[in-house]
Amino acid sequence: MKDIYVSDLVGFDEGRLFDGFFLVLNKQQRTTKQNKPYWNLALGDKTGQIEARVWDLGDPRIAKDFEAGDMVKVRGGVSRYEDRVQLKVEQMRKAQPGEADRLDMLPATTRDVDELWRQLQATVASLANPDLKRLLETLLGDPALAQAYREAPAARQLHHAWLGGLLEHVISLLGLAERVAAHYPLLDRDLLVTGVILHDVGKIRELKWETGFDYTIEGVLLGHIQMGVDLVEKTIAGLPGFPDRLRTLVLHMILSHHGKLEFGSPKLPMIPEALALNFVDDFDAKMQAMASEFERSAREGRAPDALTGKVWALDQRQLLNTKAWLGKDRK
Amino acid sequence: MKDIYVSDLVGFDEGRLFDGFFLVLNKQQRTTKQNKPYWNLALGDKTGQIEARVWDLGDPRIAKDFEAGDMVKVRGGVSRYEDRVQLKVEQMRKAQPGEADRLDMLPATTRDVDELWRQLQATVASLANPDLKRLLETLLGDPALAQAYREAPAARQLHHAWLGGLLEHVISLLGLAERVAAHYPLLDRDLLVTGVILHDVGKIRELKWETGFDYTIEGVLLGHIQMGVDLVEKTIAGLPGFPDRLRTLVLHMILSHHGKLEFGSPKLPMIPEALALNFVDDFDAKMQAMASEFERSAREGRAPDALTGKVWALDQRQLLNTKAWLGKDRK
Amino acid sequence: MKDIYVSDLVGFDEGRLFDGFFLVLNKQQRTTKQNKPYWNLALGDKTGQIEARVWDLGDPRIAKDFEAGDMVKVRGGVSRYEDRVQLKVEQMRKAQPGEADRLDMLPATTRDVDELWRQLQATVASLANPDLKRLLETLLGDPALAQAYREAPAARQLHHAWLGGLLEHVISLLGLAERVAAHYPLLDRDLLVTGVILHDVGKIRELKWETGFDYTIEGVLLGHIQMGVDLVEKTIAGLPGFPDRLRTLVLHMILSHHGKLEFGSPKLPMIPEALALNFVDDFDAKMQAMASEFERSAREGRAPDALTGKVWALDQRQLLNTKAWLGKDRK
Amino acid sequence: MKDIYVSDLVGFDEGRLFDGFFLVLNKQQRTTKQNKPYWNLALGDKTGQIEARVWDLGDPRIAKDFEAGDMVKVRGGVSRYEDRVQLKVEQMRKAQPGEADRLDMLPATTRDVDELWRQLQATVASLANPDLKRLLETLLGDPALAQAYREAPAARQLHHAWLGGLLEHVISLLGLAERVAAHYPLLDRDLLVTGVILHDVGKIRELKWETGFDYTIEGVLLGHIQMGVDLVEKTIAGLPGFPDRLRTLVLHMILSHHGKLEFGSPKLPMIPEALALNFVDDFDAKMQAMASEFERSAREGRAPDALTGKVWALDQRQLLNTKAWLGKDRK
Amino acid sequence: MKDIYVSDLVGFDEGRLFDGFFLVLNKQQRTTKQNKPYWNLALGDKTGQIEARVWDLGDPRIAKDFEAGDMVKVRGGVSRYEDRVQLKVEQMRKAQPGEADRLDMLPATTRDVDELWRQLQATVASLANPDLKRLLETLLGDPALAQAYREAPAARQLHHAWLGGLLEHVISLLGLAERVAAHYPLLDRDLLVTGVILHDVGKIRELKWETGFDYTIEGVLLGHIQMGVDLVEKTIAGLPGFPDRLRTLVLHMILSHHGKLEFGSPKLPMIPEALALNFVDDFDAKMQAMASEFERSAREGRAPDALTGKVWALDQRQLLNTKAWLGKDRK
Amino acid sequence: MKDIYVSDLVGFDEGRLFDGFFLVLNKQQRTTKQNKPYWNLALGDKTGQIEARVWDLGDPRIAKDFEAGDMVKVRGGVSRYEDRVQLKVEQMRKAQPGEADRLDMLPATTRDVDELWRQLQATVASLANPDLKRLLETLLGDPALAQAYREAPAARQLHHAWLGGLLEHVISLLGLAERVAAHYPLLDRDLLVTGVILHDVGKIRELKWETGFDYTIEGVLLGHIQMGVDLVEKTIAGLPGFPDRLRTLVLHMILSHHGKLEFGSPKLPMIPEALALNFVDDFDAKMQAMASEFERSAREGRAPDALTGKVWALDQRQLLNTKAWLGKDRK
Repeated sequence: MKDIYVSDLVGFDEGRLFDGFFLVLNKQQRTTKQNKPYWNLALGDKTGQIEARVWDLGDPRIAKDFEAGDMVKVRGGVSRYEDRVQLKVEQMRKAQPGEADRLDMLPATTRDVDELWRQLQATVASLANPDLKRLLETLLGDPALAQAYREAPAARQLHHAWLGGLLEHVISLLGLAERVAAHYPLLDRDLLVTGVILHDVGKIRELKWETGFDYTIEGVLLGHIQMGVDLVEKTIAGLPGFPDRLRTLVLHMILSHHGKLEFGSPKLPMIPEALALNFVDDFDAKMQAMASEFERSAREGRAPDALTGKVWALDQRQLLNTKAWLGKDRK
Repeated sequence: MKDIYVSDLVGFDEGRLFDGFFLVLNKQQRTTKQNKPYWNLALGDKTGQIEARVWDLGDPRIAKDFEAGDMVKVRGGVSRYEDRVQLKVEQMRKAQPGEADRLDMLPATTRDVDELWRQLQATVASLANPDLKRLLETLLGDPALAQAYREAPAARQLHHAWLGGLLEHVISLLGLAERVAAHYPLLDRDLLVTGVILHDVGKIRELKWETGFDYTIEGVLLGHIQMGVDLVEKTIAGLPGFPDRLRTLVLHMILSHHGKLEFGSPKLPMIPEALALNFVDDFDAKMQAMASEFERSAREGRAPDALTGKVWALDQRQLLNTKAWLGKDRK
Repeated sequence: MKDIYVSDLVGFDEGRLFDGFFLVLNKQQRTTKQNKPYWNLALGDKTGQIEARVWDLGDPRIAKDFEAGDMVKVRGGVSRYEDRVQLKVEQMRKAQPGEADRLDMLPATTRDVDELWRQLQATVASLANPDLKRLLETLLGDPALAQAYREAPAARQLHHAWLGGLLEHVISLLGLAERVAAHYPLLDRDLLVTGVILHDVGKIRELKWETGFDYTIEGVLLGHIQMGVDLVEKTIAGLPGFPDRLRTLVLHMILSHHGKLEFGSPKLPMIPEALALNFVDDFDAKMQAMASEFERSAREGRAPDALTGKVWALDQRQLLNTKAWLGKDRK
Repeated sequence: MKDIYVSDLVGFDEGRLFDGFFLVLNKQQRTTKQNKPYWNLALGDKTGQIEARVWDLGDPRIAKDFEAGDMVKVRGGVSRYEDRVQLKVEQMRKAQPGEADRLDMLPATTRDVDELWRQLQATVASLANPDLKRLLETLLGDPALAQAYREAPAARQLHHAWLGGLLEHVISLLGLAERVAAHYPLLDRDLLVTGVILHDVGKIRELKWETGFDYTIEGVLLGHIQMGVDLVEKTIAGLPGFPDRLRTLVLHMILSHHGKLEFGSPKLPMIPEALALNFVDDFDAKMQAMASEFERSAREGRAPDALTGKVWALDQRQLLNTKAWLGKDRK
Repeated sequence: MKDIYVSDLVGFDEGRLFDGFFLVLNKQQRTTKQNKPYWNLALGDKTGQIEARVWDLGDPRIAKDFEAGDMVKVRGGVSRYEDRVQLKVEQMRKAQPGEADRLDMLPATTRDVDELWRQLQATVASLANPDLKRLLETLLGDPALAQAYREAPAARQLHHAWLGGLLEHVISLLGLAERVAAHYPLLDRDLLVTGVILHDVGKIRELKWETGFDYTIEGVLLGHIQMGVDLVEKTIAGLPGFPDRLRTLVLHMILSHHGKLEFGSPKLPMIPEALALNFVDDFDAKMQAMASEFERSAREGRAPDALTGKVWALDQRQLLNTKAWLGKDRK
Repeated sequence: MKDIYVSDLVGFDEGRLFDGFFLVLNKQQRTTKQNKPYWNLALGDKTGQIEARVWDLGDPRIAKDFEAGDMVKVRGGVSRYEDRVQLKVEQMRKAQPGEADRLDMLPATTRDVDELWRQLQATVASLANPDLKRLLETLLGDPALAQAYREAPAARQLHHAWLGGLLEHVISLLGLAERVAAHYPLLDRDLLVTGVILHDVGKIRELKWETGFDYTIEGVLLGHIQMGVDLVEKTIAGLPGFPDRLRTLVLHMILSHHGKLEFGSPKLPMIPEALALNFVDDFDAKMQAMASEFERSAREGRAPDALTGKVWALDQRQLLNTKAWLGKDRK
């Protein structure tokens, strides 16, 4: 259905008209110097976003009944000003149900979400501890929550900031956590796995992703750690006979997974599984940041054996892609 | 009933026998160099604690059926070794119900707890916001919780570390909070008052005070902030129609009341009332620390116009009692 | 007299001529690409500031005898370039004495300065301690100092950065300090009140406000803490019989009022009144920052129940206006 | 040969004579109050150390020709003073070659060193990168270095502070590193493995373990990071054709493996393998610290489901042994 | 030979053609909106750098055979856009050997390098310690290394960021170090002098200055401390009989000269000479930063008795030029 | 007069009676277990201090009329308990005027104070700047202040903690400052010299040394920086025509000489001379700490080529005495 993407528009000739579906990310009414009202819109899809202008608000071909968060069909053309590309809208209406797919409208994982979800469920099914299994099955068995868990990004900006990012992040962590649990007899594998699956579950309430990725006000005031704890506590409250001590440990893992007070965890990891959870979470995030940075460097045309720029997520250090750099030596 | 206190024993002649009721704070079996088992006990009451020894475990006059947390009746005498006073136990049995009052057995507030409780209830009664009033009435209306709220110390060691300390601390804060709310129109007085009453409510679960003041394991793993949030959330869950936004703000106040991430608050105060709560809590704690230090200095015989020693709770600074120091000038 | 303000100019049509009085904030001679000299001026009044250009320096209608700090009468018109408004000056002369009021020329308190001053004097009059009363009466009785105290801003940029800001800040603090002193018997109210009135008195030397708000070089080298201490010491030196110990305490309060070494206080608060002064000063500054931010958010058209942007003065946290946010729930 | 250990002596009756071999850890001549010289010795073996006194230096049965670092045969008996056990030496001579085994004389790994060494060599043999393989084979092929690598402790005090500790630590890391490398395609497994084997190699020069575990002066002045880099550089200098870039990466991994400047690494990890090395090293050290603490708690008779004391190596936090704590729930 | 400098071009009329020699600092091919390729060049000489454009890549008067790092002869003219000056290249070819001097092409010391080098050699000749003398003579006697030592900047940006900067910095330090050594009998003057000469020698490998000043990748991964240590170690390895302890001390001085772990020194200064080296290096850098800032302020037309702007190299503090400020008082 | 020193007593046989003069550092009345009052005294002289006991307060040979700060004549003998030496007092009376010299009673410089004072005055005489010269002559010309300047220690504990320590510290700094001023043309030598002489002048008020070295209460509340500024300001106030700017600079140097806010300087050094003052002060203190530590190590019998223990004044690092360590190599 959607055959024209924001990433295509950059290459269009000025003035060429096209039709396409986009998500309205922002809608503002402004005034020209001649005091005429116009709309400044941000339209987006999974390939990016673009500024759009609607100059003639009285034009009957321009619908009035849309808001940020709606999908719209647009007819328009691109114009360029100092390397910025802008869309001039000529016609516009809300998309009909079924005409456009919301999954096309925001950056999304390139992985198969159904396959990731199956992996998650297989992991849950593999748990030997009946209480933890029951907890995860109940929580992930809630359809609304499951849907949100599948859609949620893992962050607004930093890492896995795309639809499905939370799930993708958790699946990567599970792989690492299984390996780590196999190495240390001290670790209770089921508890660690449960911690991995639940540690960021509060993000489905802290973040919203209808109109781009942003925090909810409740999320800013309470944080995903508290929101996740609340979710898990309420689920456990509905599970008769769930052991008190086990409940305390699961909550402790969520509370402590940032590893340091100054990173927003009100408690430091005090049990082996909490320590391991903090380690796999932190390490995986940094490895992803490295991989992303190497991709970005390549995309921006930097030589593969050059240092990257300074990377914010890694304390402003520069990075070097080992394999690319060694390439020359090996030939 | 209790007429002999730990603080009296220091002055007793060696060998003088006495009878008295004490709380068993700790009970350890050890072995003499001759390999004979004996008990090393810590006995206490509200005036302090003392080490006690039971040398002959086979003596029929020594009961076996007591544990830490029990009140006991002891017959014994004091001995002294290098300025340390020790109790030699000759007879010992568990106290009968009604023989001894637990409130005599641990350091306790010198204030009238019933009066403090009345003040708390009067404040709750004065709230104009019906939801907050309902929340507080419900929570404090639970008899077990009310009893714990009346008994709990405010800390294990630092400030208000005595039975009734939490309540005493809250009452002092309420007085200050009312004054602050009256000064700033920006502040919602009812919300601030609610925050004051609830901010440390989790301490009734974080701490235990049956056998001296200590943390529960759950308390160490979860912390009083999380435990308080949990208590309030569950109470609100039972109040139909409690506004979501108000719930978020009350929880935010509890979460943020330590004021800094590194002090264990996972969120910084973001609303005026949370900022005010952090201020009154921090300031009152420091004023109490000053007052306690001046009292301690006096008790230890330091001149009233001398500097105190370095005070841990105030970054190791020394303090000076203004009024005492100025006394000389004014004469 | 002044009937056209900078804030009005934004709305003027291009080319419309007007006459008005302004303060010269800055005067620089520059050269066009054709090597012709012109003046780039910054003109201001209490509503803001605007860039102005004088292109023909030889024009007899343009006075030469003015400098930054002078008030001038200007005839000119506005031009716009990329949303920036500029003034093209056609005639210009120094204002005659009495033609313009300097109080109209810089951002100023909206409060009645005479009324604030009366409140300050009433507080001084209320002191029971004769030495402190004598100190404050002498210091504030100096006409030049009193005038500066009434005019001074409380800061260059952060809070109360307007004429009369120091006085306004002190009056707000006095209200809070009185309430706090009433709550804690440990506090000597007269000493605390004296500390509040004197803690920032050095700002009348650290800052200058003739041509906008800036630091004096002496202010940068010595700081308002030292400058205030110097002022108070010299005043006390002129008061026979002023008690040495009281002098030490007053100076200690000024020295320690920032509360931390890293905030520029060479001493930490060591007496109850110094601790209280640091707390009320810090808390009031943060409450004012909150209030200002909510006003600014409203002014900039943000929804009243939205989070503000990240606030520099409050560690980059976002804020939420409780009352506005709860508004919806309450309806 | 060695059949009496320090740990046995604690249980001996006073006065009972015995013969045994020990390592002299320290030898000091002191003077009694009667001005008579005597020796105060520290004698040790792998189970601990004990203070010993030689009172009669003129006794012909007491050899004079030994120093710290020598193994000696001692005849003596124990005495006790306030719970401290002391050895009174009656006869003493240097051990003959072959009479005693140095490996019995200091705390040593409980693992089979030959087996650990075989695992290390198998890992080296498995490397596909010929240059890295050649580097490791050359370095570990040096007999003196190999011997030191097998003997060295991993630290003076903190973790793996026993003979063979370095090797044991490296083998544990290799297991974890292999798992991590298998999880992240970005990682060059051979380079990571090389980093693991070489990261602490400088400790064989930084530390000495002849007479207990201590730093060499050169070790204190230069540190094991620099000493390891030097060792590796000199080895590479002897390998013709070793690629420059590969050399740089290997050195970078050693330099950066502490992960932070303030931990003594002059460079932060900038390649994926250096990041991984830092994480596995840090995490393994913390897991070992947890395991050691649980063992120590058990050894000291603390209940298995109690919190440990505050653990220095983990920022003074208390720890809880998950499996022990959950034991009760599971029954 | 070179008679037109970048600093001259700013004053040229638009369109005026000129011929000149420049260093190619950067060469990028880009595409116009009409999809035509062009070159964007950065050309520089010791007075600065300028952007240049080659629009017609097919023009036979434009050479193709040059890269960044080459010197070129250019014919072109200047154009201006919004105060930025740009060069439009009409002809271009590589400079013939001998036509242009590389020393004219980058910012360079204003001191006489030969004279500075003679001073360095005189200092080496003055050493009484034969081993240190031999070390320095050997190292500085290597022609390639000597050439690099004479050319290297002391930093990429901060202080002495010009050709010859390293040598100039060392000569200034030697003067100060001699004075300090004369004041403290505890200091071994020869060792301190050796430390001064060698402390930054690794910069000749950490930095490159063919095409402007930048770090080498090896420099970023290893750092000049490690690179200097390596250079010195290898030189010492070639000096038979060099005392081990002396080698350790020289290396320790290089390792510790930044004075703090967080500044990239893996060891703190532990000997008097290392402490002194750290202090003279730090102090000289700050004094140079002050002097540079005063010069820059003067160059930018700031009044000599005004405060400078906030200085990055001195923790954002503002500076005041004492002598200039006092000038007025003294008249 | 004084022929028996505390350092001699250690070697005395028990029971041997002697007579000697000492300073009473502390006097406390305590009670024996038999409830009999006795005095616990601290007596001292320049070689150290010793605990003394007066058991029979009713003995007519024991004077009652002395306090801490008095010099006394004592007859007594030493006793030993667990390596601690104690004095048993048999007779005791206040010293007659002239019988004992206070300079013998506290640790004092080994340098000739008159000679140091002459050096200070010669430096003042050498100043070319008439205002600075006048300032120093006036201030040091005050007899009471001059006496205090000659007597004051430089610190209570850390460095130069002995009578005359301040003067000794200043003289050492002057030597270094002259050398530094000669090296940097940017520095105004007279201003730097003035800063050196005045930077710690407040210590004569911050400290007291009648009964050992301690802070005055005023010193703790205000600090020597503020006290020195006050002293200098008042002196300048008495010097007609002293230039305002010069006054500001002198005060700035005192205020900023600790170099960092967190070290108690409310301002950072902003002029070259203030930067230099901070450098010479900090460096000299650390060099003295090194020299003292090497002396102490030698005194305590540590091998001269061993590392010292961890040194508090140098961030807990260990130190090595270069010359001693190299000694062996050089032979």
